[in-house]
Parts: sequence; C-alpha cells; structure tokens
Amino acid sequence: MSDALPDGFGDLRARLAELDDLSHAARLLAWDQQTHMPPGGAPARGEAMATLERAHHDRATDAGLGAVLERLAPWAAGRDPEDEAAAIARVALRDYERARRVPADLTAELARASSEAMGVWVEAKRRSDFPLLRPHLERIVELRRRMAACFPEAEHPYDALLDHYEPGMTTAQVRAVFAVLRPRLVQLIEEVAASGSAPVLPGPFPVAGQRELALEMAHALGFEQAGWRMDDAEHPFCMGLAPGDIRVTSRFSHQDLSGVFAVLHEVGHGLYEEGVDPGLARTTMGTGVSLGIHESQSRLWENFVGRSRAFWEHWHPRALALFGDAALGGGELEGFLRAINAVRPGLIRVEADEATYALHIVLRFELEVRLIEADLAVAELPDAWAQGMAELLGVEVPDDAHGVLQDIHWAAGEIGYFPTYALGTIVAAQLWLAASAAIGDLDERLARGDTLALREWLRERVHRFGRTIDPPDVVRRATGSALDPEPLLAHLEAKYRARYGVSDLR
Amino acid sequence: MSDALPDGFGDLRARLAELDDLSHAARLLAWDQQTHMPPGGAPARGEAMATLERAHHDRATDAGLGAVLERLAPWAAGRDPEDEAAAIARVALRDYERARRVPADLTAELARASSEAMGVWVEAKRRSDFPLLRPHLERIVELRRRMAACFPEAEHPYDALLDHYEPGMTTAQVRAVFAVLRPRLVQLIEEVAASGSAPVLPGPFPVAGQRELALEMAHALGFEQAGWRMDDAEHPFCMGLAPGDIRVTSRFSHQDLSGVFAVLHEVGHGLYEEGVDPGLARTTMGTGVSLGIHESQSRLWENFVGRSRAFWEHWHPRALALFGDAALGGGELEGFLRAINAVRPGLIRVEADEATYALHIVLRFELEVRLIEADLAVAELPDAWAQGMAELLGVEVPDDAHGVLQDIHWAAGEIGYFPTYALGTIVAAQLWLAASAAIGDLDERLARGDTLALREWLRERVHRFGRTIDPPDVVRRATGSALDPEPLLAHLEAKYRARYGVSDLR
Repeated sequence: MSDALPDGFGDLRARLAELDDLSHAARLLAWDQQTHMPPGGAPARGEAMATLERAHHDRATDAGLGAVLERLAPWAAGRDPEDEAAAIARVALRDYERARRVPADLTAELARASSEAMGVWVEAKRRSDFPLLRPHLERIVELRRRMAACFPEAEHPYDALLDHYEPGMTTAQVRAVFAVLRPRLVQLIEEVAASGSAPVLPGPFPVAGQRELALEMAHALGFEQAGWRMDDAEHPFCMGLAPGDIRVTSRFSHQDLSGVFAVLHEVGHGLYEEGVDPGLARTTMGTGVSLGIHESQSRLWENFVGRSRAFWEHWHPRALALFGDAALGGGELEGFLRAINAVRPGLIRVEADEATYALHIVLRFELEVRLIEADLAVAELPDAWAQGMAELLGVEVPDDAHGVLQDIHWAAGEIGYFPTYALGTIVAAQLWLAASAAIGDLDERLARGDTLALREWLRERVHRFGRTIDPPDVVRRATGSALDPEPLLAHLEAKYRARYGVSDLR
Repeated sequence: MSDALPDGFGDLRARLAELDDLSHAARLLAWDQQTHMPPGGAPARGEAMATLERAHHDRATDAGLGAVLERLAPWAAGRDPEDEAAAIARVALRDYERARRVPADLTAELARASSEAMGVWVEAKRRSDFPLLRPHLERIVELRRRMAACFPEAEHPYDALLDHYEPGMTTAQVRAVFAVLRPRLVQLIEEVAASGSAPVLPGPFPVAGQRELALEMAHALGFEQAGWRMDDAEHPFCMGLAPGDIRVTSRFSHQDLSGVFAVLHEVGHGLYEEGVDPGLARTTMGTGVSLGIHESQSRLWENFVGRSRAFWEHWHPRALALFGDAALGGGELEGFLRAINAVRPGLIRVEADEATYALHIVLRFELEVRLIEADLAVAELPDAWAQGMAELLGVEVPDDAHGVLQDIHWAAGEIGYFPTYALGTIVAAQLWLAASAAIGDLDERLARGDTLALREWLRERVHRFGRTIDPPDVVRRATGSALDPEPLLAHLEAKYRARYGVSDLR
C-alpha cells in the first residue's frame, strides 16, 4: 500500500473492515441457505439476513463514515491513480454517497416486496400463472423507478439501476453494443439452424464420475482443499467468503455434462475472488468489481477454455475413461467437440448455448428498459416476451413458465442485472484475445493441462485490483481497448461457420 | 402469550429479535468454522466473529433497550410468574444489567487474550509444555478476577463467573453438592476397580455402519430431515440455529462406539433446542436456560437412556446385524451392556465413563475456585492437578498433555463452565427418576424403540420454557425437589454394585 497514509485512513480501514465482516456473515448465511440449511430454518434465516442487511446499511450510511471520507477525499484525489490506498478512499466515498442517496425506507420496502414476490413467483411459475405475479412485479417496477429517481443527474433512469451492478456502464453503451450483437447473432443462428446439425452426447453420465472429472479440472485450475470447497446447490453459484475461503457449488444431471461446465464456470468466479490482492482483505474492495467483469471470468473458463479443442485434447481421454466411448458418441475428439458446442435455439436462458445465450439477455434488457421508461406495462410482458423470442431466436413460447416466468431476477427485485451476463461474455472474448496474444503458446499449454499461465495473466491484469479500478478501466488496461463486441462475434462466427461449414455471408 | 401487552413490549420484541438474529449469524459462523470452513478461512472468520460479537454487545447494552426494560419492569413484576411475556421482560432486564456491568474494554481484552491463548494452547498441548501457556493463563485468570470484581455483591467472586453459565447457581451450592458426590464416587470407583472387571468390545466398528446406526437412533429420537442436519466435527457439538434448524455434529472412530453415544448426547441437546415454545423464537429466550440444564438433556439421552438395558433390547439386534457378533463380543446382550457401562479410571475427561466423569469435574472446579480466590497460582496448577487425579481417581499423570493441558476451556477464557457438566449429570438423574415415575411403562416403551413419551414429558416439563424459568425452578418444577446428588449416586451405586456384584458397603 502507500507510504505515508493520512490521518483518518486507519479509521476508514476499521470501518470498512466492519462492513466487510458483516458482509462475510451475510454471505455465509446465503451460502448455507442454498447448500445445507434444513428447510425448516427458512423463516428464521430470512429474518437474520434482513437484520444483517440493516446493520450493514446503518454502518454504510453512518455520518461518521461520511466525515472520514470527506476528510480523505482531497488527499485521494491528489494521489497517483495506481495508489491502492487512495483508490480505497475514492471508491468507498462513491459507495457511501450512493448508499445515502436511496432512503432507507425505500430500500426496506423493496426488500419486503421482493421477499414476498419471490414466494409468489415459485407458485406462479409452477402453475404458469403470470397474473398471480403481476401485481407484485408492478410494485417492484414502481419501487425501482423511485430508486432510479434518486439519481436525477443520470442521462437515462435505467442508468442508475445498471450502475448498481456495473459501475460506470450506461444504458446508451449497452444499447450500442447490443445493436451490433443482435443482428449478427440472429443471422449466425439462422445459418447454423439451417445447417441442421446439432449433435447430442448420448450419455448417460453417472454423477459420481462427473463429480470426479469436475473436481480434477477444478484442481487443475487452482481449486485447493485448504482454501476452497465444493457443495451441491439447486442453482450453482460461487461465493468468496474471504481470502482462503472460496465456496463453489455445483449441480449434476446424469443426462448431460452441463454440471461439469457449471463447475468450470463457478471456479472461474472463484479464481477472481481468490486472486484479489490480499492487501484488500477486510476492506470493501476485496471482491470482484462488477457482475460483468465477474461473468467475464466465469465465461472465459467455461466457454473459451472449457469448450476449446486444446482443453479437451488433455481431458477427453479422461472423460472416455470415466464414461466410456458410447456415452461420448464414440472415441473421437471431433464429434465430442461438435456436441459440446452445438447450437440449439431454445426457450430457457440457463440452458442456452454459447451462441444463443446473449440473445436471451438482449430480450430482457430491452424489456427492462421499456418497463423503467414506462413504455411497456407489466401486463404486456408476456406478449412482448413471446414476440421477442420469435424475432430473436425463432422459437414459440408455449406458456409463461417457459417464458417470462422462467427467471427469479425480477421477482427478486433485480432490474439492471441481466445485461451484465452478456457484457461479461463480451469482455471474456476480449480478454481471451488479449491473453492468447500475450501467451504465445496458450493452446499448447491447455493441451497439456497447464492453465497456470492464463491464470497468472488474469490475476495480474484483472483479479488483483478487486474493486479499486472501475470496470471500463479494467477492460482497457487488460485488452488495450474499450468494451467491444467484435471479438465475441469473431469468435462465434469463426467457430460456427468453420464447424458447420457455413460460408461467411457477412 | 399474554392478553394485553403494555406499550413498549413491541419495541422490546423488536430489539430482542435483532439480538437473536445476530446470535443466529454468529452461531452459523461458529458451526461452519467447525464443520465446513476451509482452513484458509480461519483468520477472516475470527475477525467476522469478533465484529458480530461487538455488534451484539452494542445492542445488548444500548441505553434505549435499558429504558424500555425499566419502563416494563413494574408491569412484569406484577404479572403471574407463569406469564411468558412478563418473563421475557424480566430475564431480558437481568441480561441487560449483567451485560452493562462488565466494561466493554474488559470483555474485548478477554476476547483478545483468549484468542491468543487458544493458539498457544494447541502448541503447548502438542509439546506437553505447560510453561509455554502459563503467562497466557495468568492473564486470563487476572481478567476473569477483574470481571468477577464487577459484581461486588456476590458472596464469592467465583459466583459471578458461574452465574454466567448457570444463572442462580452459587459456589456454596456447588461445593455442598460436590462434597456429597466426591467421597461416595471415590469409594464406588475403588470398589469397582478392585473387582477387576472392565470388559471391552472387540470391534472393529466400520464408520459407515456406526453412522447408519446413529442416524437411525437419532431419527427414532426425533431427528427429522426437514429440521435437522448432522455433520462431522473434530469435537462433536450441537447448535440450535433457529426453530426448525438444529445442527448436530458427530465424530466416529472405528475402534469403539463412542461416536454413537456422542450422537445420542448431541441429539439430546438438539431435542431441548427444538422443544422450546415457538412463541419464544426471535426473542433471546428461545434457547436452553443454562449449560447445566442443557447437559442434563444430553446426559439423560446418552447415559440414562442410551446405556440402559431397555434401550438396547430394541437396538442390540440392529447392532449385531451391522457389526456382527464377534465385534460385539458375542451375541449376548448382557456382555454388551457390561462393556458399554465399564468403569475405567483414566486421565482424560472426554473419554471418561459415567461413574468417573464427575470426579474430573470436581477436580477442575476445586482448582478454578482456588485460582479465583488467589489461593493457587497458575504455576502451581500442574502439581495440583497431579495430586488431585491421584486422590480422586487413583491415576498418575504422566505429562501435562494428559493432565492440565488436556482441555481448551481455560485457554478459551472459560472459567466457571466446567461445573455445569457435573450439575447436568446430577439433574439428568433427577429427571430420569421423575420421568420414570410419571411414565409407568418407560422401560417397556424404550424396549420397543418408543421414546415419544419421554420426549413429550421432557418437552412439557423442561424444554418449552426456554430461558423464561431459571434453572433451579426448572429442576423444582420437573422433579419436585431442589438440586440433589442422591438420585445420581443411587443410580450409579445400584448399577455398578449390581453389575459388578460388589456388596453395598454404604
């Protein structure tokens, strides 16, 4: 850290440490809820989580914290942009101002409304009954619009929501990027669909074997018993509780290898959390800077590494040994690669392949913006959804359970979250390109099971900064350019046109 | 709860709910630390636990809470002693006053000193090097004496420490009870030792089979998947996180069945936590009233039920099926019962049998009182320990690792805790006697695997009150008498004199 730290910096560190400790506890409550908690514990857990959230909010908006931050601001502004201590003070001030902008009552109201809506969502999805959820979503959209209004200086009201998940990102930027992505992906998918080839691995894949394979891969990537663990969860996720305490979760089905790819995805998140400079521990900066950058790490390992020929040159023999030739559709690597990279336009986002995934996000982003602009009513969502799916992916939505009710995010009060999934994939492609250029023999390394050089490059260029550098700067420093959808499009177009033998019509 | 609740009671409930939520989180942090946390998470976990502890302490000693409690005190004093709401206000006021008495700095200093001492203890025990730990224990004794001095009205300074774990219990009462226990147990053990019979089960007992048996027993006792879970831990414990979320832990060795008895013990604790009136959830009263009463539940299930002929009439065939006749020393129940009830004076408390256990506690209590009275210096502990073990159990202490360094309690800053283990066993015997009288066919029920009547009796007489009734009143209500060592002595003397054929010399 810095040489001479100003008065007040120790006080700031102590306050941030307390905030981080409360987050640590809150994260553990959430992890346990999704992995180990007996169902009977749910009501009390909800209350405990809300209390911790309030305790955190009280401290995050404490006037004493504000005073310390104000006092440090001139010093921080005068320091080198590389200075970690100054960055801590700078980002913490922004967090504080942001937290103070939204009245505590409004935050609490959204928490209550979301908690109720999530319960209703489960039932509405089960019965495919959108009208059941509608009033709850209307309330959530209204509350989110009120939150957006707390930031009147924003160019677009959606900016304020987006900024919560992706600091520095604007609606205009996302629109611009998606405007490039949308037509090119739609066309690519049409071409691939026309080629009629979407091979499937026959399976079955016994879960014990998948778990073994996934753990071996995770260990190869950097999962160490002393600092990580892996548990089962209904919806896989990763949580960094602290340096040396990374929690990955997974879910396996014997029908396919999706669980193995999910582990690669979550370990990608975990490597980011693990790679943050230990000097940022017990500040509020010791974690991933945004959902988008986080997703760039998970997608990079899941797709750019995990679906590559080089990676499977090393792992395919192991998969054959575990599952047998028949399950993998024969002993040839080529057929296996075609199957794990197959494109299949479908209804469900979380089952989407690498090529179609971003279009699921484009749809959600467009609908969210219109909801916040009040250009679309909640009641009109199902129709707008069906229309969007037909346009983007050429699929017909049979019911709301397979349409607008499939994701929990809106019921959970999360609006502005979805775009980060696609932004992450875009950044992953940019990082992959840069890393491949920097590490001349990356493919050869992956082909012998060596991921170390790539991990180190990512640690050095992305991970170690934690939240001290904003997402656009992370991208610019690591790749030399701004957010750019071209590398992703080039990657997908090259992969699928080559694989499926479709000529380049661009 | 009550009909007309006074103004301020809602405020009190909200404050207690917050305290309970923070405890819930703190308990989960501790549970996870001992069951799932990767070792690398230890430093951050310690910090997070300390922060939650401080947040809890701040709220528990908040002047606003005090004002509410003062306002409610006259109302609570005028209510029926059975009134649950009034009891909440009464006990909460006592908690508040107690918490305010000890300066926060002193509490923090003890926390720091203990945290350091626990680290040193691990090393000191490994090397059997008492001098290494000595200065840390001296510091802890000094801090504990300063804490005791915060309660100048106590008859004996040790009272204040004891009261923390066992509200309402005094040094004089423990002395009186132990004065009866000590000579009778010493004599009984001498007699049993002279008889020369201490059969051992040959084993081995594969851990998978033990786990199966223990889980079957736990389910029979009331362990339900929806509200409980069982995990492995180095030192088994039980934690009630919330109603419907009981965490039992276990540890098995293939050499003996101690892990099975440990599960019965921990499920006994769990049944207590589970049996508290749900109306006390999210107050600070929804847990066991004291360590002693808690231990009465675990000991009752472990020893009075779990080592009884009736219980094993049901379970012995299952054990034979799982482990085979040879492992159990033949197919006869009689020989098995002799082995699981064998008396073997030894050095280690946690390995002690039902007859010798209390004498390990008598020794620790006597030493603790002398340390607090400054009648014994920390430096003199090893010699005093060796002398006590020779007098009480007739064993020679070979080194400090097998003597004064065996337990973590003192290094953890816990002084006044040990006596509750023996008090619990005494109360267990009283409850067992009363339950046997109330449930005419208890043995017949246990012999057919039915523990329901006993569990219901305990729930009705002990569990449901949580912390709203003080330990002495719990004992008096449930058994009709005050704390009394006679039932325990009668139980042990009858069991061992009959079993070993030693004549009654009393």
